[in-house]
Amino acid sequence: MNADPTESLENEASLQLDANGRLRHLLTLDGLDKTLLTDILDDAQGYLTEPGVLPASSQSLAGRSVANLFFEASTRTRASFDLAGKRLGADVLNLDVNTSSRKKGESILDTIYTLEAMHVDIMVVRDASAGVPAYIARHVLPHVSILNAGESDVSHPTQGLLDVLTMRQHKGAFENLVVAIVGDISHSRVAMSAAHALTTLGIGELRLISPPVLAPDQSRVPGARLLHDLAEGLADADVVMALRIQRERIGNLDGIPGIDEYFANFGISRESMKLAKPDAIVMHPGPMNRGIEIESALADGPQSVITQQVTNGVAVRMAVLDRVGKTMAARL
Amino acid sequence: MNADPTESLENEASLQLDANGRLRHLLTLDGLDKTLLTDILDDAQGYLTEPGVLPASSQSLAGRSVANLFFEASTRTRASFDLAGKRLGADVLNLDVNTSSRKKGESILDTIYTLEAMHVDIMVVRDASAGVPAYIARHVLPHVSILNAGESDVSHPTQGLLDVLTMRQHKGAFENLVVAIVGDISHSRVAMSAAHALTTLGIGELRLISPPVLAPDQSRVPGARLLHDLAEGLADADVVMALRIQRERIGNLDGIPGIDEYFANFGISRESMKLAKPDAIVMHPGPMNRGIEIESALADGPQSVITQQVTNGVAVRMAVLDRVGKTMAARL
Amino acid sequence: MNADPTESLENEASLQLDANGRLRHLLTLDGLDKTLLTDILDDAQGYLTEPGVLPASSQSLAGRSVANLFFEASTRTRASFDLAGKRLGADVLNLDVNTSSRKKGESILDTIYTLEAMHVDIMVVRDASAGVPAYIARHVLPHVSILNAGESDVSHPTQGLLDVLTMRQHKGAFENLVVAIVGDISHSRVAMSAAHALTTLGIGELRLISPPVLAPDQSRVPGARLLHDLAEGLADADVVMALRIQRERIGNLDGIPGIDEYFANFGISRESMKLAKPDAIVMHPGPMNRGIEIESALADGPQSVITQQVTNGVAVRMAVLDRVGKTMAARL
Repeated sequence: MNADPTESLENEASLQLDANGRLRHLLTLDGLDKTLLTDILDDAQGYLTEPGVLPASSQSLAGRSVANLFFEASTRTRASFDLAGKRLGADVLNLDVNTSSRKKGESILDTIYTLEAMHVDIMVVRDASAGVPAYIARHVLPHVSILNAGESDVSHPTQGLLDVLTMRQHKGAFENLVVAIVGDISHSRVAMSAAHALTTLGIGELRLISPPVLAPDQSRVPGARLLHDLAEGLADADVVMALRIQRERIGNLDGIPGIDEYFANFGISRESMKLAKPDAIVMHPGPMNRGIEIESALADGPQSVITQQVTNGVAVRMAVLDRVGKTMAARL
Repeated sequence: MNADPTESLENEASLQLDANGRLRHLLTLDGLDKTLLTDILDDAQGYLTEPGVLPASSQSLAGRSVANLFFEASTRTRASFDLAGKRLGADVLNLDVNTSSRKKGESILDTIYTLEAMHVDIMVVRDASAGVPAYIARHVLPHVSILNAGESDVSHPTQGLLDVLTMRQHKGAFENLVVAIVGDISHSRVAMSAAHALTTLGIGELRLISPPVLAPDQSRVPGARLLHDLAEGLADADVVMALRIQRERIGNLDGIPGIDEYFANFGISRESMKLAKPDAIVMHPGPMNRGIEIESALADGPQSVITQQVTNGVAVRMAVLDRVGKTMAARL
Repeated sequence: MNADPTESLENEASLQLDANGRLRHLLTLDGLDKTLLTDILDDAQGYLTEPGVLPASSQSLAGRSVANLFFEASTRTRASFDLAGKRLGADVLNLDVNTSSRKKGESILDTIYTLEAMHVDIMVVRDASAGVPAYIARHVLPHVSILNAGESDVSHPTQGLLDVLTMRQHKGAFENLVVAIVGDISHSRVAMSAAHALTTLGIGELRLISPPVLAPDQSRVPGARLLHDLAEGLADADVVMALRIQRERIGNLDGIPGIDEYFANFGISRESMKLAKPDAIVMHPGPMNRGIEIESALADGPQSVITQQVTNGVAVRMAVLDRVGKTMAARL
């Protein structure tokens, strides 16, 4: 929908804050400043409790309605936003939408205007097309908030936040951190949002490792090193993140005729992790293809922080929902 | 299911009130008296708040359970009832039912008896077959309420209520009002329920404008003028409502070989609205086929009250839910 | 998943209680002692209210999250657990899962670990494969509870509890009770769980009546009499329970070429009920095939307690949810 993605991203960044600098929409992490990111991480940290203890909750969104508008299928991100909304006291509406119903039915803006008219003030949007969350954000009423829950291969800002929160919990400061993200970088909104957040937070070194055909344009990730060799990428890394790969893409990669070759060349394993720092952590956004991009034993081993990422996901979404709710309340 | 629709409607009307004249079911607006309609509109008006402000809420249905039983697909009406129920404190159950599951599974009454046995006291029913809501209402326990959320081409009472509420907000009294409803009248439960409500409220003139083949039997709408010419129908109208047309019906209309011809003959546009009163309002029940039954710029223009209809929809449903809940409580 | 079902069942029984003998998971009724079963029935009885009165509710699970994970389609059991959870104040998450999504996506354990990481502390699982609930229970964190909501043809413990609660309400003590369960016993998790509960509660006589090809192994139901003649099975019975039969199975039964023959030989009717005690009650787990395994007039007649079973179902599920919630709280 946007001819010039650079211009679009710039616009999105400014679109996200209200006149007083408060977070109104969360469309992308690109362009949000370090203070704001840190504040969200701090808020999220405050929502964490031990397993078994009651999860944190409040009534800060009591009376507000949140709609989950997932035009692309999702179980885990939808469930995470659903629980986050409910634990803040909101009424959560899960809408049964998909691309086919949109085709035969009304336009996406008419769906949004309808929800807006029903006093749904926060809309969580996942869509397979680039530009949809920003497009919606440009058309809603002044008090309505749009949260991007996954946008094509462009961005997935709450995932980026939960990823950097997880890194901060284990590694503290970002200045000297070496983070290696491995896999299908070019199609990964997860990698893009992690790159945005890490760049803003002042990471030491960000390495994006992939087969050449799955590398992103350097212009999309100006501060990152693009690598094609796993050993070089993992050397002395503090954080190693494997990305989910679409199985059907594997057959089309040069020199990678099958799953075994992909795993041998770009799969993260206990063996390949020996190249990283001894205390390196292993991350994955889920859902995992065990044995393809990550060795099963590594995913379940002591270096893995994968389930912690999930826990942080709910906390980050509560922090963002609470924050845009406060922005809304401040308007009155 | 009902051989004689006239007799059925008469029965439905009496079925809707309990021995003390309180609303128990909402099956049709046909036969409900002016005082009751006005009371519901007044209650609904009381639930309206400004955009951005918290929507009205109460705990009047706390502890009660409402089941949305949509045997026909719906996003907007289901969402509207869902929010209305939650904002009154009810537990809302959205059941995954459709005609195919009913065929292979149990009878509709067994589904209803099951929900009733689970202490679901309010059931919101949408069905593609005529007579289903009344059929169910005749079989439930004395305290259970059935709300019709769209019944074949027969009636859609909460839509009728939200439509007259919207007219009242803009035009005040109904006595001298000229209302023009345009489109596929014969298949429109929306038009039928609007006609029922407007007749009871003492409308000045109701015009139903359609191609001849889409005109209703005059006996279904005794007080209305049936017209086939758009210019005649819109002349000096106070309210113009366009109905959604099924695209596949257009090819079968005499002299209307395609969408362009339908729009030219029966589409509402800024141009055709010049025939109506200068302060006429434009309505549509949604979802819209922009460029077919309504010009896109008109739908988004200053005369349009279409999103206000949606807002009124939640308020009307809260008013009805609250009212049948009070009828239930009065039995004890 | 379990090579030796006997060993598995033994393990499951011990797996269900924590070190202090409190109920942690509900996987099977086999092996739970009489005191515990009776305590659950007593709790459930306390949740029952008259139709029309507000259903019982509490805040005992406030702040807790319950996920309904139905890998096999269900409307009534899912709705029953949904309402039970909400009436105890829990946040209820209904997950859109089915076997096909599991195939292409992540493993079942990764789904469970994800929910666990989101602080979902109670998972209600229905699955078409034997052993899945116990398999999950062996892998979750110490405070997490797994409730079996229907497991292949192995067990359906909350159904067993609601069945014996219904019998107790009508017949009081179990010592001299004659219970006849009729139909496709070999594929019936309902019959298995009823058998487990009735055996533990000290039933007088349990008769399982079916065509020979649908009889279970005697080893699965050691205390029961396996019969193939309806008249013999119903003679002087206090309780008669018809099971749902898959229509497609009927054609493959020896001497039963069609529905009429099945009904004649194994259908429960007002006529065949004359063989049972005059005050015998008629049960069915639902959904019913009226005219196949049960005569329609009998299902709606004075001996039928079928809707009461549904009511008891919500109460039993509240009792179980509340109990595992208390076990969780006692850990802290």
